[in-house]
Amino acid sequence: METVLGNADLLGSAEDSAIVKMAGTRYMIQNTDIFTPIVDDPYIQGKIAACNITNDVFACGVLDIRSMLCFLAAPSTIPGWVLTDMLMGMKDFLTELGCEIAGGHTIINPWILLGGTATGFTDERYLIRNTGMKPGDVLILTKALGTQPAMALHRVMKRPEFLENVRDVVPRSELQGIVDGAIKAMVTTNKPAVEVIRELIDESKGQFTVHAMTDVTGFGLAGHSENLARASRVDVEITRIPHFKWAMELSEMMGYDLANARSAETAGGLLIALDPRHQETLERALKARGIPHYLVGRAISSGTGKVHVSSQVIYQPITNAGL
Amino acid sequence: METVLGNADLLGSAEDSAIVKMAGTRYMIQNTDIFTPIVDDPYIQGKIAACNITNDVFACGVLDIRSMLCFLAAPSTIPGWVLTDMLMGMKDFLTELGCEIAGGHTIINPWILLGGTATGFTDERYLIRNTGMKPGDVLILTKALGTQPAMALHRVMKRPEFLENVRDVVPRSELQGIVDGAIKAMVTTNKPAVEVIRELIDESKGQFTVHAMTDVTGFGLAGHSENLARASRVDVEITRIPHFKWAMELSEMMGYDLANARSAETAGGLLIALDPRHQETLERALKARGIPHYLVGRAISSGTGKVHVSSQVIYQPITNAGL
Repeated sequence: METVLGNADLLGSAEDSAIVKMAGTRYMIQNTDIFTPIVDDPYIQGKIAACNITNDVFACGVLDIRSMLCFLAAPSTIPGWVLTDMLMGMKDFLTELGCEIAGGHTIINPWILLGGTATGFTDERYLIRNTGMKPGDVLILTKALGTQPAMALHRVMKRPEFLENVRDVVPRSELQGIVDGAIKAMVTTNKPAVEVIRELIDESKGQFTVHAMTDVTGFGLAGHSENLARASRVDVEITRIPHFKWAMELSEMMGYDLANARSAETAGGLLIALDPRHQETLERALKARGIPHYLVGRAISSGTGKVHVSSQVIYQPITNAGL
Repeated sequence: METVLGNADLLGSAEDSAIVKMAGTRYMIQNTDIFTPIVDDPYIQGKIAACNITNDVFACGVLDIRSMLCFLAAPSTIPGWVLTDMLMGMKDFLTELGCEIAGGHTIINPWILLGGTATGFTDERYLIRNTGMKPGDVLILTKALGTQPAMALHRVMKRPEFLENVRDVVPRSELQGIVDGAIKAMVTTNKPAVEVIRELIDESKGQFTVHAMTDVTGFGLAGHSENLARASRVDVEITRIPHFKWAMELSEMMGYDLANARSAETAGGLLIALDPRHQETLERALKARGIPHYLVGRAISSGTGKVHVSSQVIYQPITNAGL
């Protein structure tokens, strides 16, 4: 697809969302995402989709998400209640964010697809891009990693013949908790972390700044660190991989690459790059709001966007997704 | 799908686009549409898609379309140039409208799907809704009808065994012209007609008004007239069905219902409801810009949204799509 987009001269920037300049210092921030379901419960799937779509807008430092247009595709054989539940999940999630579903579009398709377009607005002074990370910056992550092995476990738990193998590495009593923790993480919005950042900017009269920000999704912590590093022309060292308890063992068993932070995440945490002198301020404020946060790495030098996992990396298991 | 949306309490209004109130008298207008291709040439398909998506925004009286987020789904077996050409078609069409492709999303899917979300802005005084048609209003349409039989002919022309039957009703020398005319119509934006309306509103200092407007697409002229009529609580009589030359014969042969204006259109014309005393003003201004226009019906009474085709209806064949 990169070649396709490149040939059409549409590769664009590495920003999480489209950033469109409006009048004065106003910006419009938009993100489209469309997914195939990853959980059985359509209501939960709707929440995960809405969380994932809006998180890209939050990752630009935007709080005012004004509208969502939903998109739903499904074979005509799918029972109506499944589709209704997916839309209800999206809607309930968005209502909690104070965002309205303004419209949408539905089509027949061989696969179920669910997604939408979120549109937000912000003043320039709150807009956070991908491009501003500086050598020496620390990287703070607001969710533990491991949704890919956790969701693989979710599928395996319905297949007793595979489940036997899993029980060799994970105690039986812990299995459901891994899935539940990952789902809890995937339906937890990153909005409160952006509110914390916004408050720190306002209270400090602009002294507190975040240099760059992104959310961690399909390319894993390492891939999204690379996006930041490349756009900011620095290199990055990953020093810690916080992960749902047992996700590392599952990842190894199932052939994912969580050990190198390359395992895909769904609706993952914010990855925040900031000057180390602001680290304590941010961590204290996140803690006060009950938001998990982990120091996962730092920008080590001006560079070309290389990311390496430190040979001293700390694998930190997190119980109940830290939530 | 209506039941699905209704159960999720998401049926919304019958407006062509989502209408979101912003600060003061500003409104944001958004539309998402996603299609399977209907023509062979992917570049043309890209233009048709962009035309169709943006026409819903223009149908609200909006001129300032600020951004488009593209969506592209395809099986991994589709050659890259096909996808690139579709995106190039969208991009070139949007560039002519002065609209930028701000971002997008691509996925693997068993079917090719192409679409996007267009976002525009307008002041309240230019916003035209579905709901304001009044008894006595005339209905002006800006494109001839018949894209569905024309596109069916497009498919048939590659199947010699079916083509023989077509030649019984349409002269061989006319066949390619029908397809070309329909494609020309489908890549012609409705923006200039909205510019004409905007100029008339401005020049007349608000004396000239349009009561209601929509664009004619999947439900045909009769179906979209019903949308206007239902939202405005009037009934409508269709008095004229302007159609691509030979489209009526093809429609009858192929089992479509163009005779009752129920045949689906792609990227069809604007359907404009206005007081009959403004009809001549509008028609003169459209003519001056070279925009086709046909008086197709009128609102006959306060009612419940019933649409009937007059027993005196005029079937008017249009050569070369009137363009």
